[in-house]
Amino acid sequence: MSLVSASPPHTPQVVGILGGMGPAAGADFVRLFVQACTKRMEVLGIPVRDQAYPEHWLAQVPIPDRTAALNDTRPGAHQPADPMLQATGRLAALGARVVAIACNTAHAWHGILQQRFPQMVVLHGVQEVVAELSARKVQGVGLLATRGAYDAGLYQRELERAHIACSVPDDHEREQLMQGIYEGVKAGNYPLARQRFEAVSIALQERYSVSTLIMGCTEIPLALSEHPRLEGISLVNPSVVLASALARHAYCDMPTEGMAQA
Amino acid sequence: MSLVSASPPHTPQVVGILGGMGPAAGADFVRLFVQACTKRMEVLGIPVRDQAYPEHWLAQVPIPDRTAALNDTRPGAHQPADPMLQATGRLAALGARVVAIACNTAHAWHGILQQRFPQMVVLHGVQEVVAELSARKVQGVGLLATRGAYDAGLYQRELERAHIACSVPDDHEREQLMQGIYEGVKAGNYPLARQRFEAVSIALQERYSVSTLIMGCTEIPLALSEHPRLEGISLVNPSVVLASALARHAYCDMPTEGMAQA
Repeated sequence: MSLVSASPPHTPQVVGILGGMGPAAGADFVRLFVQACTKRMEVLGIPVRDQAYPEHWLAQVPIPDRTAALNDTRPGAHQPADPMLQATGRLAALGARVVAIACNTAHAWHGILQQRFPQMVVLHGVQEVVAELSARKVQGVGLLATRGAYDAGLYQRELERAHIACSVPDDHEREQLMQGIYEGVKAGNYPLARQRFEAVSIALQERYSVSTLIMGCTEIPLALSEHPRLEGISLVNPSVVLASALARHAYCDMPTEGMAQA
Repeated sequence: MSLVSASPPHTPQVVGILGGMGPAAGADFVRLFVQACTKRMEVLGIPVRDQAYPEHWLAQVPIPDRTAALNDTRPGAHQPADPMLQATGRLAALGARVVAIACNTAHAWHGILQQRFPQMVVLHGVQEVVAELSARKVQGVGLLATRGAYDAGLYQRELERAHIACSVPDDHEREQLMQGIYEGVKAGNYPLARQRFEAVSIALQERYSVSTLIMGCTEIPLALSEHPRLEGISLVNPSVVLASALARHAYCDMPTEGMAQA
């Protein structure tokens, strides 16, 4: 067995992950990113070893609740923008060229982040998901999300632009999702979360006959997965899509890329 | 349902995680740290919510292979010390007061890191594991590790000091472990890794009658877990122990700590 230690002639780009929203989802995003990098290396024909992964930094910083902020427009209300900008600036200072935001609802502030850091690519997770659904010719989806994401129309706007119909839960079901997210995953009560998410998934499937559901909050896939109870429902995990996009960007300058795409 | 957004009067310390050795293990370490923080908050009576977690940064940087470096003393050979020092310095600049190294073999450079950054606590994962085994009155263990960790005596020295007998694999078995680590986990081939790790575990149990095995390389628990095939073997995951220690340090200044310990 040989332990190769020479550096490759081209190295992938440094990337950053803006997490903490919540922290378990941020940790899971790194896992998905590492998996996506492994797959990317296999596609590009790069031998998989520790030193061939892109340098990446995860910032898990306390950021005020996104849904609460979208509901509270009083001056001086706790806003996520400042700590998000600060953490993104620190990721930039660490050398990150591309950043992913490990929170769907936080994409309400994507524009501010991208505008303030024009030298970096701030990936838009919602747009990445919609692009993938378009490529798969999906025509209609159900959306599981936070109140903040529904109210801001984060997914609905992008889906409409792509002519994909979007079915959303009623008010009671949104409350169930919020319970699953806040009293469930964010408070460490996963069985409660799973029960709430499954109940709303089944309700959407029955009412709108949708077979594809977007798990549009990073907390949801931590407690919800495809299961016989959800027969006929295909779950889309935006973190998987965004992690793959981040890996693609990290390796975009690699010399073998053109060959693999040809 | 209320969305609390006020900051707590005392906030936990900022901590850093030095990862990338390998990246999958670094991601898993963050997951374990977040879990340990959730448990710590429950013990301390702190309501569990996103903003109550300690700010933490994960550095996943390319670091030359530790075992290769311990075997290669030529001047100019690729050494892990420099990138480890650089990444630790950047974690310090980000405000980290405590750092954990998510790699057992890299603890060969623990002394250099702690000496260079006296203002921070660099946790010693090996010492944390041995302290826990002592507290549990374990008298003998088997050690699964990299060649570098065996050759440097990282675990053996600390175990001897604690009067815990340490059984180690023979040369052929060490080669099997290295295959599991490098051609298995680090190359994304988990079934190969599991087969190699299980074979050596069973061999150690049969030859030395040990019932406790230290998974002394962060890659090993990614492919090895307690299983009927390993009947009677209790596996110690140093990452779990180190993540708990990091969470304990992060919350050490919290005002409720004294009450919970009393």
